[in-house]
Parts: sequence; C-alpha cells; structure tokens
Amino acid sequence: MTKEGQPWVSPMVRKIRLQIAQDPSLNYEYMPVMGMNSFIQASLSLLFGKNSQVIMENRVGGVHTVGDSGAFQLGAQFLKTWYRDSQIVYIISSQKESYGLIFQDLGFSVYECSFWDSTKLCLDPSMLLDVVEQAPRGCVFVMGNVANCKLSQSQWIKLMSMMKSKRIFPFFDIPCQGLSTGDLEEETRFLKYFVSRGFEFFCSQSLSKIFGIYDEGVGILVVVALSNELLLCVLSQLMNYARALWLSPPSTGARIITSILCNPALQGEWKQSLEGVVDNIMLIKEKVKEKLRLLGTPGSWDHITEQKGSHSYLGLSSQQVEYLVKKKHIYIPRNGRINFTCINACNIDYITQSISEAVLFTKDSKK
Amino acid sequence: MTKEGQPWVSPMVRKIRLQIAQDPSLNYEYMPVMGMNSFIQASLSLLFGKNSQVIMENRVGGVHTVGDSGAFQLGAQFLKTWYRDSQIVYIISSQKESYGLIFQDLGFSVYECSFWDSTKLCLDPSMLLDVVEQAPRGCVFVMGNVANCKLSQSQWIKLMSMMKSKRIFPFFDIPCQGLSTGDLEEETRFLKYFVSRGFEFFCSQSLSKIFGIYDEGVGILVVVALSNELLLCVLSQLMNYARALWLSPPSTGARIITSILCNPALQGEWKQSLEGVVDNIMLIKEKVKEKLRLLGTPGSWDHITEQKGSHSYLGLSSQQVEYLVKKKHIYIPRNGRINFTCINACNIDYITQSISEAVLFTKDSKK
Repeated sequence: MTKEGQPWVSPMVRKIRLQIAQDPSLNYEYMPVMGMNSFIQASLSLLFGKNSQVIMENRVGGVHTVGDSGAFQLGAQFLKTWYRDSQIVYIISSQKESYGLIFQDLGFSVYECSFWDSTKLCLDPSMLLDVVEQAPRGCVFVMGNVANCKLSQSQWIKLMSMMKSKRIFPFFDIPCQGLSTGDLEEETRFLKYFVSRGFEFFCSQSLSKIFGIYDEGVGILVVVALSNELLLCVLSQLMNYARALWLSPPSTGARIITSILCNPALQGEWKQSLEGVVDNIMLIKEKVKEKLRLLGTPGSWDHITEQKGSHSYLGLSSQQVEYLVKKKHIYIPRNGRINFTCINACNIDYITQSISEAVLFTKDSKK
Repeated sequence: MTKEGQPWVSPMVRKIRLQIAQDPSLNYEYMPVMGMNSFIQASLSLLFGKNSQVIMENRVGGVHTVGDSGAFQLGAQFLKTWYRDSQIVYIISSQKESYGLIFQDLGFSVYECSFWDSTKLCLDPSMLLDVVEQAPRGCVFVMGNVANCKLSQSQWIKLMSMMKSKRIFPFFDIPCQGLSTGDLEEETRFLKYFVSRGFEFFCSQSLSKIFGIYDEGVGILVVVALSNELLLCVLSQLMNYARALWLSPPSTGARIITSILCNPALQGEWKQSLEGVVDNIMLIKEKVKEKLRLLGTPGSWDHITEQKGSHSYLGLSSQQVEYLVKKKHIYIPRNGRINFTCINACNIDYITQSISEAVLFTKDSKK
C-alpha cells in the first residue's frame, strides 16, 4: 500500500500499460498453454540470474500460471499423480493456509509449521532444522520466507544434507522477490544452493506484488530438473493440467512485466521504484517502534525492525491479538503477522496506541 | 479471423483498452474471488435479457472464471462433490474433447455424442432426442451448439420433458453468443425455455471470442437455481473452488467488456461489429460453395451455407478428411468441422481445389 492507503503500482507499469494499449502491431490471439515464453524466460532470469548454471544447462523451465494459487494448484496436481514417495506436505511459512487447502483438497496430509520463535521474538533457523529432522522421509516441503530466516552457511548445508538424505522434495514460494531488502539477487540466492547440491524442485514465483499488478494473476510454476530431458517430461505433464485448468493464461500482466524486464533502462527504473517501497517499509517499522517506545509500551520492540519485508510479526500473544481484533477492530491474523504497508499517517497513532493498550491490559505475558 | 488472416478484434475493444490504460482513477487491487461483479451482471443481462424472469427473481448468478475451460473446471469440481445422482457425463456437441477430459480427470464416466447426421448432412434434432432417451437417469448433459440445431417448439418440449423426468442436469456451453446469426437474444432463447420449465442448470459463457479478446480468458460459470437461497449456497461452494484454482480472476478482459456492455452507445457499435463478422462468415461460406460447384465437385454443398456460425461441418467422410490432412496439409479435425473464418482470399482456391480432389480421389462415398 502507498502512504495514501492505495495499492502500490510501479510507475513503470502505468507507462507500459499505455504503450501496450497503443501498439497496433499486437494481436490478442490465445497464448500457448504454457503461457508467454518471453515472460517465462525473463522471470527465470530474474529468479536465478542471467548466466546461472541451471539456465545455461537448460534444465530449468516454467509454466505461466494464473497467480501463485494457480502455481500451487498446478504443482500439487502434478505431485498427486507423479510423486510417489509420500502424500505428506509440510507448509513451513506463515499465513499459507490457502496453499494448505489446495494440497488437502487433493488428498495430501498437510502439516503447517512456523519458525517464528515467540519467546525470542525472531525467526529461528534451528526450529526449521528441527522440523526437517522430524519430518517423514520423502515428504514435500513448501517453504516460503526462508530467505528472511538468516541461516548461516553451515545451517544451509545441514538443512540441505538432511533434506537430501530424507529425499524431501522442496516446493519454494517466492511471493515477492526483492521486497525484503530491495536486493533481488540476494533474496533468491538460496535457490542456487539447492541447484548446486543437485536438488530437483518446484518454485512458485509471483510477480504481481513486485510490479503492482495485483489483479492480473501473474505467476509461474518454476521447475528445476536434473537434465533437460527430465525437465521436458515434467513440463509436458504440467501442460495437460494447465489446459484443463484455464487453457491459456491471461496475457496483460505478463506483457507488461516482460516489457519492463527485457528493457535494461526500464528494468533499472523499476528496481529503483522497488527500493523506494522497501525504504518506505523500513520507515514505517521505525516509526511504529518509536511510537511504541514513546507510549511506554513494556518490552523491547526491536524485533519489528529486525524483520525484513512488508509482512512481519508484531510479536504479540494470541490474547493480545484478540484484544486488538475485538476491542479495537484491528483485524489481524492470530499469529500477529501484519502487513506494515497498511500503516500510514492516518492510522499509525490509533494502531500503536491500541497495541500499547493490548500489551498493558492483557494479563498474559508475551510468549 | 479477419480477411487478412489476423485474429479479429472488435474496434470497440482497442478504444476501450486505451481508455482504461489512461484512467488514473483505476487501482489494480486483487479482485474478489467471485470476480468483477459489474462484469458478471452485464454478462448475465446479455445472456438472459435485462428484464428476464431469473434476474428479477434473483436466482441466477455467476462466478467470473479464467475462460471457458475455467468455467468447466469449476462446474465439474462442484458436480463431483455435490451432485450425487450420477457420475456420468454426456458431452453433446462438437470438438469438446477438452471438456470431456476435465470431467474424466475428476473421475466421471464421459460419453461424447454429436447430432450431425453425416448422411442427411445436417444437424438432426431427432438424434439429440435419441441420446436423451438412451441416457441413464440423473446424468449430466453438457450441451453446446443446441441453438443451431433448429428444434421445433414441440421438439423443445419433448426434450425438456424427457430431461426433467430423467432428472438430467443440463450444463450449457455458450462459447460465442451472437456469432451464428448476429442476433444475441435469439441465440440464447432456449435458456429461457429451461428456466421457465423449472430447471436448475449451469452454463459456461465465454466472452473472449465475441469481443476479440482471446488472450485474457474471460468466462463465467452461470448458475440458475430454483431460489435465491439455493443460489447463494451453490455460489459459496464455487467460491471455495475458485479460491484454490486461481484466487482471483484476471481483470483486464472483464474491464473492457463491462465498459462496452454498460454503455448503450458502445454496446450498439459492438453489436454492429459482430454483425459484420457474421455477414463475413456467410460470405465465405457462399464463396466456398460456389467454388466447389464451379470445380464440378460431386454432391450438393448446400449444407455449408445452411449451417450457422464460424465453425461448420464440411460434410466429408473420414477418408476424405485424411486425404486433406495427409496429401494437402490442410489440418482439420476428423469430423470435418472447420473454422470458416480461416478461409480467405489467399487460400480459398487451394482449399476448395483440395476438397474437390478429396471427394473425387477417395473411393469412399460420403456417409
């Protein structure tokens, strides 16, 4: 959201939208079932880097999907039919209930876990490692938000070794690459670790939020395979599912994004606009923390600014959250993870005052 | 296709696309799971007429879907869970293999039938009635192309009585309302018959082809129920499926169409552009028939001009079709039903010459 409480749109997007509407050479024929190829290639470059190993080796591909729900639907359907190791899915992330339901509807057993430590008030890599340790062999791991978890090099190695030896299939979720730090490359570096350790995996990449095209459902189901031959086998199956789901994905969003990503000058401008969003998120968090301090709210609120990204944990107990919802009509999920961009000059005083009250008036201490 | 072999786009569409791109007041927030409400309402008015019984009685609604594949996927998922009468689906139409696969993948038994009489060279209502007579009780009937079948009043009554007494659930397919005759109201009149006879039904309505927005997947799953209460129950279930399939449908196509349908002047211009397409289809068919006559091709070719719509049967045997495909590289489906708008000044001579040869050089007589 912008400071005015409107959905953020990259200024590039408005410009390109107009260009596309004025382009007499475009035709509006059905797209291929796989989607717009140039869009897929541009998005893969964004995810892995232009000269990355997998792209060079021709063993990464993708299917253009209707948003990230579409990507999970497609991936889940494939795994249901072709992944024979296990029918168990761990969703390791925050607020991913909707993806859990997709797997559940298809007959998977779904477990949801978080690696937010509500005592230490931080994302805890060791909780992630514990989950892997306890998970059954061959299960599917849907992992979002891992980049924010700050694993050390040795923790990454441990994580991958355990996943490898237990034959756990990773299904990553990249809902908004770049929105945590503004550094697009940094935020998906962990994918390269998995590539170089010889993993095959799926990854849902959504581009709606980082361009501000929320209403066009621009997602990709990314497939990393061990060889081009295996990749083509998987893609051909995915194509069948996509045909039955929506026949061909919508093009407007993909056209806009491709135009920006394939033009270095526009891509530069877009990245700058994204950095502006990241700076703004940090500013809001600083302000919230400062207001809570000035209000004399008990406890440390450093965890607010220590977390990256638009969505972060407030670090409230469920009773405190209930107080916000019931007494203050501030509707946030029970885990207290909120979208900081929704806080603006008009509501920051009310919100921080309410948080302060919630902490003071609920007996329960934070846990 | 246009005379130049390009996908047809209504001139209105280009104009509105530009207006939308220039509109600073639009935001690009996620749409509701059900889709754009104004789009759904405008499309239902187009389908049933503004002052129709079902709309007044508030017992028709729809979910905005990603194309007609999306509408069938959504409808099929609902029927799989909630329709307990039977798991048998009859697809009564032409070239609907893809919808057959959607039902099949969900575990339905699927039968495909056509009411094209290849001896009499016409769509035969009595074949349709025969299928209904032989179908098992409680099955689902996916019906496309019925409007072109020219049932008499008494045949409609017989059809509906049989379907009613056998508790057959109709699932209509309206892929391009108006493209057969240019008369939008006439082509969906049969829906009103079903409404007034107290049927509940689904209907897939696609608006991509009649506006020339093929790449945006603008469809609707229309639900007609016996009461508003029942309608709301069905819609609430469909919403769950839609959430898992794509979360929220893409908006560009729906925005364009709504802008046109909600403005009487634009709607008038658009209808005129559609009539132009219909006239052009008729002209092509006349030309094909005339060329075949001049080439001395054996047989009568009146069935070409007697059929309505862009897609019609050539009335060739499967051997004759095979001849076209293998010897002439004219790739058409085995039933010989082709898209006449793909025939233009550049290829009409080659195509008619080839058909003529196919008829002369294959021993098999038309059957």
